[in-house]
Amino acid sequence: MKNGYARHTSFHVAVDCIIFGYDGIHLKILLVKRSFEPEKGKWSLVGGFLKDEESLDDAAERVLFELTGLSDLYLEQLYAYGDVQRDSGGRVISVAYFTLINTEVFNGLSSTKYGGKWHDIHEVPDLIFDHGTMVTKALRRLRRRAKTQPIGFELLPEKFTIPQLLNLYEAIYDREFDKRNFRKKILTLNVLEKLTEKDMKNSRKGAFYYKFNLDKYNQLIINGFVFDILSN
Amino acid sequence: MKNGYARHTSFHVAVDCIIFGYDGIHLKILLVKRSFEPEKGKWSLVGGFLKDEESLDDAAERVLFELTGLSDLYLEQLYAYGDVQRDSGGRVISVAYFTLINTEVFNGLSSTKYGGKWHDIHEVPDLIFDHGTMVTKALRRLRRRAKTQPIGFELLPEKFTIPQLLNLYEAIYDREFDKRNFRKKILTLNVLEKLTEKDMKNSRKGAFYYKFNLDKYNQLIINGFVFDILSN
Repeated sequence: MKNGYARHTSFHVAVDCIIFGYDGIHLKILLVKRSFEPEKGKWSLVGGFLKDEESLDDAAERVLFELTGLSDLYLEQLYAYGDVQRDSGGRVISVAYFTLINTEVFNGLSSTKYGGKWHDIHEVPDLIFDHGTMVTKALRRLRRRAKTQPIGFELLPEKFTIPQLLNLYEAIYDREFDKRNFRKKILTLNVLEKLTEKDMKNSRKGAFYYKFNLDKYNQLIINGFVFDILSN
Repeated sequence: MKNGYARHTSFHVAVDCIIFGYDGIHLKILLVKRSFEPEKGKWSLVGGFLKDEESLDDAAERVLFELTGLSDLYLEQLYAYGDVQRDSGGRVISVAYFTLINTEVFNGLSSTKYGGKWHDIHEVPDLIFDHGTMVTKALRRLRRRAKTQPIGFELLPEKFTIPQLLNLYEAIYDREFDKRNFRKKILTLNVLEKLTEKDMKNSRKGAFYYKFNLDKYNQLIINGFVFDILSN
């Protein structure tokens, strides 16, 4: 494409991805050891430079696909970072994205195969550049989203039990919820579909599996309903 | 600064600003007629290209200062737009910001002096490129922010009456609120400081002026209080 703006300065643009995963107990993020200078060998978010014929979203999808082999992930732009000195290797504008990996996929993403390693959100090592700031912001965004949108379901397998859903919310918000209130609240929302199958692994009585019903959820949203799993 | 990433493609980066103002009755945005090709003469957000030694925030502040002569405005990054074809003049990554101009300043910003013109939010003309999308997103963000943060006060003069505050909220949300409930709600929050002075222009009885007390507000936030002017 012809570029009429040639007299203006141009900049390297990158995307960096905060990848949240859930192992059934803890909320985690996937980090890689940086493979080039500067800061080679240090822990980093997964990222890459924007290419000519791709949008910012395309670049984030490509970077995630290269690392995980996965596409069609939940992907949300977080923020654009543009401080002059943010990258010691040269001026780079970085647009951060975050994504959510569900438990089943999580288990398939072995650390060695893709050169990434899952870290508990409470034990994130020092990260290069401003990546620590990005992680903090992403966690805040995840918490806000999970309050009002069914985003948490992206982190669970397709069928899940209420105790699993509760565990996930406890991991995201790093606090305990009242079991009975949580169950009542989530069932009242009427966005879960009860299956006939039970999980018998985690209790003698067993716990019914549920599926999230996106159609019902969308109906509620259209009718002005706000999904708020945490309010009283 | 030395740039070790030279082999990667570089891109033009711009900032575009959605400038909200309030004239005491209507919510408005400030637009300019584009002064260069392509799309010369069409309505556009105020924007500019990122320069070498400035951050994205710096660039947004500069662009706003050049247009309005104002600095220290409320400024919030909205979103980074990176579609390949978004700008018909060449590939440009645009980071959108929004800002709020208070009524007193608004009145001083005459349309001719700065080459900009205020448009009612309901009568925004066709805008170049993806600027219409940016405006829609900014309005959504403003509505969300004004619900839980005292952002609306940025649009008012330093001292204001409760009816003025109500008018502003009605303009932002484009609906009527119950006057009595609104007054009760906002006073219960205990973040307003009543002044001894009254506005006698708009009613026979007059309406006391108030100031927003940021210290009290910050105390509430620290204590886990959520500012929610609209809930019941």
